[in-house]
Amino acid sequence: MKLVSFAVPAPGEPEARIGCVVRDRVLDLRAAHAWSLIEQGAEPTAARRLAEAFFPADMVHFLELGEVGMLQARALVESFASRLDAEVWTDPGRHPLLSPLPRAASLRDFLAFEAHVRRGYERRGQPFPDLWYEFPVYYKGHPRSFVAPDDEVPWPSSTERFDYELELACVIGRRGRDIPVERAHEYIAGYCILNDFSARDVQMREVQLRLGPAKGKDFATGLGPWLVTPDELSDARDLEMVARVNGEEWSRGNSGTSHWTFAQMIAHASRDETLFPGDILGSGTVGGGCGYELDRWLEPGDLVELEITGLGQLRHRVGPRPAR
Amino acid sequence: MKLVSFAVPAPGEPEARIGCVVRDRVLDLRAAHAWSLIEQGAEPTAARRLAEAFFPADMVHFLELGEVGMLQARALVESFASRLDAEVWTDPGRHPLLSPLPRAASLRDFLAFEAHVRRGYERRGQPFPDLWYEFPVYYKGHPRSFVAPDDEVPWPSSTERFDYELELACVIGRRGRDIPVERAHEYIAGYCILNDFSARDVQMREVQLRLGPAKGKDFATGLGPWLVTPDELSDARDLEMVARVNGEEWSRGNSGTSHWTFAQMIAHASRDETLFPGDILGSGTVGGGCGYELDRWLEPGDLVELEITGLGQLRHRVGPRPAR
Repeated sequence: MKLVSFAVPAPGEPEARIGCVVRDRVLDLRAAHAWSLIEQGAEPTAARRLAEAFFPADMVHFLELGEVGMLQARALVESFASRLDAEVWTDPGRHPLLSPLPRAASLRDFLAFEAHVRRGYERRGQPFPDLWYEFPVYYKGHPRSFVAPDDEVPWPSSTERFDYELELACVIGRRGRDIPVERAHEYIAGYCILNDFSARDVQMREVQLRLGPAKGKDFATGLGPWLVTPDELSDARDLEMVARVNGEEWSRGNSGTSHWTFAQMIAHASRDETLFPGDILGSGTVGGGCGYELDRWLEPGDLVELEITGLGQLRHRVGPRPAR
Repeated sequence: MKLVSFAVPAPGEPEARIGCVVRDRVLDLRAAHAWSLIEQGAEPTAARRLAEAFFPADMVHFLELGEVGMLQARALVESFASRLDAEVWTDPGRHPLLSPLPRAASLRDFLAFEAHVRRGYERRGQPFPDLWYEFPVYYKGHPRSFVAPDDEVPWPSSTERFDYELELACVIGRRGRDIPVERAHEYIAGYCILNDFSARDVQMREVQLRLGPAKGKDFATGLGPWLVTPDELSDARDLEMVARVNGEEWSRGNSGTSHWTFAQMIAHASRDETLFPGDILGSGTVGGGCGYELDRWLEPGDLVELEITGLGQLRHRVGPRPAR
């Protein structure tokens, strides 16, 4: 399944709903479940109450239902796939997509691709540290900084070096602690494209103080457009990854070139710690997958498009520089 | 008010309830509100439903109600303070305290105390960086790693350098972005003691790779015992801070010695980013407030006790080393 969150009007700010993309249309899973229950004889109010418990606004809460929720969603997709005229279908024109997890439980972002890390040390004229091979290092990102697909990414107030990062992310679907590498795949609910937007000059200052990065990263993160369940991907270790800026290809790589696997990252992250449904692990930038490696930088108005085999395309427009 | 979360039995794992400490007893705010509504003529089921919406299990969800929730809590404390025989009172013997926020929205931990930072650079034989004066740097901690007051802190599997950190934390009570320093106090819901437990050897390896720390910190964090609302503290800039290990004083400092104020930290964190209710900002370690500065280390079985004026005492027992 390709799970999405989409926006419906609500007091204060739009509220999220969970859907499943089928051939360019979006099945509103809560509405589909309510109709299905009504057809089975439930009172409409009771049907809506139960449907909301199965398909809450927050994707993290849905993921917390584990297989209970996934099986229900699959059954609804199957049941409504042949009924495209039913009222339970919508589309991004009517209800814009949000990030599939508008709010994650947490965001760990790794540095799994050796080529990217090597290039960074080369650029800074520093020797590549052997320590990097000993464990998959990560920092923690901002789990509520996700910019919806096709939305504008605001230019942070104090950067002259606005960058993208082409990454693959996996989303945890099941609570676990001290998870062994060989069982890690059981904990993955799905995959997304991740764009770890970066203010490089801000980031470089932060890491000089041996903490973070934080402000250099947390102003915005791209995630989406879908949360693709593992059964839809033939092999997460062989996905072509491409970044284009204003239609021009800047980056191309393959997920299989990562030194650390998601299984190893999950094992490392879960040592002495509990992973929860809705936790996100980012792979880090694929080799060549950011402007820093190319010494090319984003400008206001640029259209940044990331594409990964099977995971769709994730586009954002870079916002204007704020007035001083 | 001194707000707490306490545990009630529930399927799977205990569920949290929100309370307010009054003279060693805990007012169960949901139960108090339900009784109060029943006394005003509401049906018990309706009263319980409304009371649960006001006082949900999750303290973050309560904080999201803002002043609406705080005013209701204050009214209930006032109304029941003279009725200590009512069934709405409990105590930690019957319902153990959890961390006041068993799950925070996020955790940013700063390095606000110059003496602590200087001592670290001295210990590593490195020059103190002038950059530290330019902005309040922080890393992001694990917002679901909180160990309940008086609980055992598990020894992480790969450390020989288990440490405590004596810190003050403030909790955000209101959404804000680009918050000016002079208005920052309006966004603070309250204060807690924070113990940023650390695996120093693990931390030192991570920061060599210019990310984090993560595994060196995220195995456990102490927070509590109460969330103290600002009106209960005469001056958050003049709080005595003490750490004792097995009753022996190891650390003593004062919150007023911090170079960066919470107002400055809130302004910095909220630049280009939204702060949300339930976000926590840690001050960083007060000067002399950890074993690393003293070259003294925690051992299995140690009782670590942090005390801050007006915020109570936060105790944890260090767990046994895991079997290899």
